[in-house]
Amino acid sequence: MNSKREADKHMQQFYRYVEDHSAGYVQELQSLLREPSIITNTIGMTSTATLIEQIMLRMGCQVRQITCGDSKPYLYGEVGSGPPTILFYNHYDVQPVEPLNEWDFGPFSAEVHDGYVYARGAADNKGSLSAALAAVETYRKVIGDLPFRVKFLFEGEEEVGSYNMERLAQTEKELFQADLCFWGSGVLDNSGHPYISFGLKGMAYIELRCSTLRSDIHSAMAAIVDSPVWRLLYALTSLRDARGTITIDGLDTHVRPVSAEDRDRLVPSDFDPDYFRDLFGIKEFLHSNDPRELMERLFFHPSLNICGIRAGYTKGGTKTIMPREAWANVDLRLVPDLTPELVVNLLRTHLDTLGFGDVELLLKCAIPGYRHQPSADHLARIRQASLETFHSEPSFLPMMAASGPMYHVCAPNRLPVLSFGVAHQGSHIHAPNENIRVHDFIQGIKFIGRVLDLFGCPNRSGI
Amino acid sequence: MNSKREADKHMQQFYRYVEDHSAGYVQELQSLLREPSIITNTIGMTSTATLIEQIMLRMGCQVRQITCGDSKPYLYGEVGSGPPTILFYNHYDVQPVEPLNEWDFGPFSAEVHDGYVYARGAADNKGSLSAALAAVETYRKVIGDLPFRVKFLFEGEEEVGSYNMERLAQTEKELFQADLCFWGSGVLDNSGHPYISFGLKGMAYIELRCSTLRSDIHSAMAAIVDSPVWRLLYALTSLRDARGTITIDGLDTHVRPVSAEDRDRLVPSDFDPDYFRDLFGIKEFLHSNDPRELMERLFFHPSLNICGIRAGYTKGGTKTIMPREAWANVDLRLVPDLTPELVVNLLRTHLDTLGFGDVELLLKCAIPGYRHQPSADHLARIRQASLETFHSEPSFLPMMAASGPMYHVCAPNRLPVLSFGVAHQGSHIHAPNENIRVHDFIQGIKFIGRVLDLFGCPNRSGI
Repeated sequence: MNSKREADKHMQQFYRYVEDHSAGYVQELQSLLREPSIITNTIGMTSTATLIEQIMLRMGCQVRQITCGDSKPYLYGEVGSGPPTILFYNHYDVQPVEPLNEWDFGPFSAEVHDGYVYARGAADNKGSLSAALAAVETYRKVIGDLPFRVKFLFEGEEEVGSYNMERLAQTEKELFQADLCFWGSGVLDNSGHPYISFGLKGMAYIELRCSTLRSDIHSAMAAIVDSPVWRLLYALTSLRDARGTITIDGLDTHVRPVSAEDRDRLVPSDFDPDYFRDLFGIKEFLHSNDPRELMERLFFHPSLNICGIRAGYTKGGTKTIMPREAWANVDLRLVPDLTPELVVNLLRTHLDTLGFGDVELLLKCAIPGYRHQPSADHLARIRQASLETFHSEPSFLPMMAASGPMYHVCAPNRLPVLSFGVAHQGSHIHAPNENIRVHDFIQGIKFIGRVLDLFGCPNRSGI
Repeated sequence: MNSKREADKHMQQFYRYVEDHSAGYVQELQSLLREPSIITNTIGMTSTATLIEQIMLRMGCQVRQITCGDSKPYLYGEVGSGPPTILFYNHYDVQPVEPLNEWDFGPFSAEVHDGYVYARGAADNKGSLSAALAAVETYRKVIGDLPFRVKFLFEGEEEVGSYNMERLAQTEKELFQADLCFWGSGVLDNSGHPYISFGLKGMAYIELRCSTLRSDIHSAMAAIVDSPVWRLLYALTSLRDARGTITIDGLDTHVRPVSAEDRDRLVPSDFDPDYFRDLFGIKEFLHSNDPRELMERLFFHPSLNICGIRAGYTKGGTKTIMPREAWANVDLRLVPDLTPELVVNLLRTHLDTLGFGDVELLLKCAIPGYRHQPSADHLARIRQASLETFHSEPSFLPMMAASGPMYHVCAPNRLPVLSFGVAHQGSHIHAPNENIRVHDFIQGIKFIGRVLDLFGCPNRSGI
């Protein structure tokens, strides 16, 4: 009890400091959000990295900018001394901003309205990156030198598949040695209740292209000439049925049945179908309306989505042409045994078997999934941090439906991964009007500080 | 024989004049081609109309610029006095120029290389429009006052479906009174052998749009949320089978079987599959490799083509999003009993029946087909003109596979329609590097002059 009170006292100081300085944290977040860092268009990557480096230097980190092959700069920083060592992985790149006309505010003006910060990257993932930096800097300022080691590893290529991370993990092995990886990705619900997860799906982002003609042709010829657009559409619709089940030959044999333990880990109250129905205008979910079954699909089944498709004349008005080529980008979200390479091989064979040898495949992004179910001890610490900062029981999810480079970051040392972020369910991640709530951001700084404290000095907190 | 020799003499003068002044005709064509007149983007319509009006005034026409509703200006001109009266229908608008990077020359620089003029609109349809003006002007200059009446009717909305033509035909009935309509559309083959046709297919240009979501969603949700892109793809692939046969419920009952007479009108040597295979890189034709069967499909069967399709992120790089909407523009080429309105109704019912009530339809362009099989007498005159100018037997096609507003132009007075144009099979109509051969253009002026002479003064030519 004595140590508990002591812990409370130093953390109460920490919490109060965070509250008193919340305006400053928001300002620093805004500076970061005002730097566009769209990796897809390679806009503003260096200036964003430089800004983050300055913050890391200010807080006393040993900082290295590392490039690996043709990579954008990785930012690596260390502060404090362990054991234990906590590795904060995050990324400073963001998704493109299109469609621009659907934004209510400039995507890089980082305006605050009614307690929300609007910007591309606010939720994915500069809000959580900034919260982690703020938590560590404030911890040192308020509580003193860190009795544990913090490693920051920030990349600029997450949104395009972290394609240099595997090589970095091979060439800079010591950077990845730690006791826990903290990945700043996750959401809170409308009442500020946090979701914390311990794994993520893999992804294969694949371009399918059909270019069967030498040039566009007058569309009157469609009576006798097959079109690459039709061929691409038949190829695509052969990959999935209308109920959303992937029909690529042989793929289902690589999807493990959901275990009883995993099913038990899914808590129906953690998924509110009506909330998402309302948020996105969804009329019917695929497969089921049962929360547990929907979560099972989200976490343990692969999915196939068309991110973009284009052929022919796509401006306004009319143009009567048979386009000479058509292409689509699809992303498959993958479960553990289903690697991106395996998926591409299955897809190639499937298309060839159906006579679609003329549909070319290009694997543009490949991320294996990763998962590490935490110990009861870990869960207890996270629960305590959540109760103290969000005043709410956390929801623990075995997986998140999204993807990230945790396999390359964590697999070499089999690190437990803890995913928590300051986004919320209405953050419009990857979409127009991306936003986070200022309150979540501030509470998130407190939560991260408390997690550091509990994982970094377990004895002090008496767990 | 006497009258024949006399005819020869005045036409020989005409032919010689055309040859001697060919450079001037090409220059005037180039001026016309250098005026962009892209109706889809409403670029340069007025200046193009003004240039044509000036040419018509110069050659002694009574000219009217007519607008009808919100139409671009119609140019109507009369010269000579009949009977008979020959109505030249043509259009001065052109298709968009995208994809621009696939042009070898600027689409509006109208450069001449190795006997070809390259420009958007060269083949469709300013080459033939210019040839008709040149033929009439030269006929008056060389042979004298016209003993027949020529009417010119040029519109600026053909490429978007001539949507004001029906109203013009109702409000300006007298403009359409004539004995023959000459529509400047058609091709020559590689040896300069002309194809002349007597009807065209209808067209329905329809947008299909599926917008089932309120906003784009992170693509991880594809495991449980159906996507408007997938829905559009399933809807589209329900409309046609992989062999190109339209499968819209009930549509086939409105397609008349090909009559024995029509089948007999198809001459296998008029369609060279290998030529098109090579030109466009076509590996296999749909349905058949037999020339007669391919022509039968082209002229007497409906077709369904996707002119453009778009959803989601279509720039370079990757973006993992489920798009909130998807759309496609399709064009159906129609046979006589299949009106655009009927097609839209059948399509709506088909989609509703299959549960695609959320796929919205917009009929963006509706053109009924038209056909008028000419008399043997007419065919004989055209044959004579072809022999004299192209030194080649013409090919007579009962139909063309393309579409145009001939129904509205010709149906009120049941005009015979004769389609001849100075394009060739490699003209890349609607596509990059659109071109015509200078030789075809010059011979075309002679041919049109001779057709005028034979139809306008049948007795003089002794037919």
